[in-house]
Amino acid sequence: MKYLVEFIGTFFLVTTIGCTVIDGGAGVIPPLAIGSVLMVMIYAGGHVSGAHYNPAVTLAVFLRGRCPAKDVPGYMIAQVLGAVAAAAIVLFLKKNPTVESGTLVVPNALAAEFLFTFALCYVVLNVATSKNTAGNSNYGLAIGFTVMAGAFAVGDISGGVFNPAVAVGLIMMGKVAVANIWVYLVANFAAAAAAATVFKLINPNDK
Amino acid sequence: MKYLVEFIGTFFLVTTIGCTVIDGGAGVIPPLAIGSVLMVMIYAGGHVSGAHYNPAVTLAVFLRGRCPAKDVPGYMIAQVLGAVAAAAIVLFLKKNPTVESGTLVVPNALAAEFLFTFALCYVVLNVATSKNTAGNSNYGLAIGFTVMAGAFAVGDISGGVFNPAVAVGLIMMGKVAVANIWVYLVANFAAAAAAATVFKLINPNDK
Amino acid sequence: MKYLVEFIGTFFLVTTIGCTVIDGGAGVIPPLAIGSVLMVMIYAGGHVSGAHYNPAVTLAVFLRGRCPAKDVPGYMIAQVLGAVAAAAIVLFLKKNPTVESGTLVVPNALAAEFLFTFALCYVVLNVATSKNTAGNSNYGLAIGFTVMAGAFAVGDISGGVFNPAVAVGLIMMGKVAVANIWVYLVANFAAAAAAATVFKLINPNDK
Amino acid sequence: MKYLVEFIGTFFLVTTIGCTVIDGGAGVIPPLAIGSVLMVMIYAGGHVSGAHYNPAVTLAVFLRGRCPAKDVPGYMIAQVLGAVAAAAIVLFLKKNPTVESGTLVVPNALAAEFLFTFALCYVVLNVATSKNTAGNSNYGLAIGFTVMAGAFAVGDISGGVFNPAVAVGLIMMGKVAVANIWVYLVANFAAAAAAATVFKLINPNDK
Repeated sequence: MKYLVEFIGTFFLVTTIGCTVIDGGAGVIPPLAIGSVLMVMIYAGGHVSGAHYNPAVTLAVFLRGRCPAKDVPGYMIAQVLGAVAAAAIVLFLKKNPTVESGTLVVPNALAAEFLFTFALCYVVLNVATSKNTAGNSNYGLAIGFTVMAGAFAVGDISGGVFNPAVAVGLIMMGKVAVANIWVYLVANFAAAAAAATVFKLINPNDK
Repeated sequence: MKYLVEFIGTFFLVTTIGCTVIDGGAGVIPPLAIGSVLMVMIYAGGHVSGAHYNPAVTLAVFLRGRCPAKDVPGYMIAQVLGAVAAAAIVLFLKKNPTVESGTLVVPNALAAEFLFTFALCYVVLNVATSKNTAGNSNYGLAIGFTVMAGAFAVGDISGGVFNPAVAVGLIMMGKVAVANIWVYLVANFAAAAAAATVFKLINPNDK
Repeated sequence: MKYLVEFIGTFFLVTTIGCTVIDGGAGVIPPLAIGSVLMVMIYAGGHVSGAHYNPAVTLAVFLRGRCPAKDVPGYMIAQVLGAVAAAAIVLFLKKNPTVESGTLVVPNALAAEFLFTFALCYVVLNVATSKNTAGNSNYGLAIGFTVMAGAFAVGDISGGVFNPAVAVGLIMMGKVAVANIWVYLVANFAAAAAAATVFKLINPNDK
Repeated sequence: MKYLVEFIGTFFLVTTIGCTVIDGGAGVIPPLAIGSVLMVMIYAGGHVSGAHYNPAVTLAVFLRGRCPAKDVPGYMIAQVLGAVAAAAIVLFLKKNPTVESGTLVVPNALAAEFLFTFALCYVVLNVATSKNTAGNSNYGLAIGFTVMAGAFAVGDISGGVFNPAVAVGLIMMGKVAVANIWVYLVANFAAAAAAATVFKLINPNDK
């Protein structure tokens, strides 16, 4: 399950990198989004896999004596697969079809809302309900900055909502069309269920 | 009282979202403000309700086994009500009347100063004076970023002061009119009293 | 000594507000700088005075029962005096004479370097060497963001150096004139000595 | 070894300052990058040397009684040497030859990737695998913001990758040329090995 954690963390790292740099990517946003998503994935997965998300980090931790040699290939393969999957998603989200900022293309918005609501719930469950991370002072930082990173990454695709209550508020303010509410309900609740399933899979002893 | 905490947290989340995106909302400010306000409300309310502020998160925590089934409807209702109240406030603050950045419209400024000074005092009392959060390392982050989120959300409505001493300083620097000092004194001290009352309500056993 | 801590914290809060908003102050910088300086001053002074820096917060903490009535007037007076002193400094730094960004006006640069190197050393001593804050996880955040807030506040006045080694590096890179090195040496080392003195004054039992 | 830690920390502080200010340096990026790199180097080195990285801080800590007189000259010399080395690197990275943003100049890209992947692995090993920092809540913040600071500092030189899996993802997205993959593999893995060696050197009793 350590490998699944490495896959997920690297996947969200590379997805965020891709979404924020594919259209050019200068300025303050890509580094802020990338540093933030790496931070939150480390807080979420550190207690399971050590949260490397990077073959160079795995090499460094192995040489320092905190990663068994037998785990090294699995870690690196999971990281590269996570990056490959992320690149495919980024190409889908941003290029297929070319999405104009501000318009809602349903499959892209569904995917974007599913992915980052999954990230949000995955982070919440790991930093705020896991036995292994109990008593930490970083849960608020981790959860808040997941939404920040998601808003930077896919805000122009789906509005960066990740929350059905927020969708209701945005409808009242005229920022989301009533006809699109189902996109958020479906994607956000499905992502919540998926995150709970994955949490149980990677934390089998934490009831 | 868990429901009140969920209402307050979702209210400030959606208020900050609304205030920063209603006029367009591209760029670095909305994600930074939104991630920050979510972070601070989680640090403030986590010890009472778990600080979900999101029906998808409530579903995920329920499926993971850390939210009793009987609480789920109440959480979700409180969250949606918080979002609805926030949307109403945002429409009032930003549209009624249309506020030009830099001019002080008294009712809007009073509301903006009251709301975010309340948020500030509510966060301070919960992260820095509560028995349940004693010994944390996040109190400074939570309090500082409350002011940051508030300044992003309503800085163009009231100046984002939230502090009578700051109002005095800004008058000396010529950034606040002497005739408007009462707005800050009234709104800030009333918000402080309201926050103390709410704190006692949600922490009945913390004398 | 609690009152001195309230004075210092409010002083740096209002100085940072003033320096970042006096010339207009829209955009991401003022809220980020203000939230950060408040955060770092809370981490620095929380263990001595509770770090209110705001009469509304003092009122809220008093009503909640964590600030004795006899301390309330002293806290509020210290906060207002800190704000007044800050406003005077801001007017001196930014208006007397009008400073063009990029030119070094010696008295202004000396004052700017002295003030924020004092803030830096004051924060370091309180978060990283005090018995009362031992074991915290926020020392790096507090110290790093002090420099960030200082660079936002007075970067256009003195370069935002606060560090003689950095001054040497900037001379080699051609960003600081050799003839100005004394400004940094004098202001930075004097500020260090002042911060050590103040630390001992406010922490008399911490040898 | 305390002196080596002071050298490394000041080196990365001044490298980040130089890279972000040498071409002009107004705006939000330099203070954010500088505050972040100082923060991460403090989290990485605090348990060994106290993480001063600044002769003024060393003076303040000495006067407060937490730095022995015999260490003061060594600390200050290490800090100035770190700043000098950083200035030389910055001049090499940014001026020799003049690098256009977006083009990959191989020696510059190799150096940039080596340096900040070293910083990343050095921070990971110290904050997430050291006995002396076990149980902290800042490891994710420290690691994530190392990448952020590196992306700000050298993003325009090498793309700010610091991670072979990310390089693979960026190749798939068409943001890195396949022919350049060796730059990342060589620089990143070499940096990981160097960081592991340095970690063992500065933490001789932490097996």
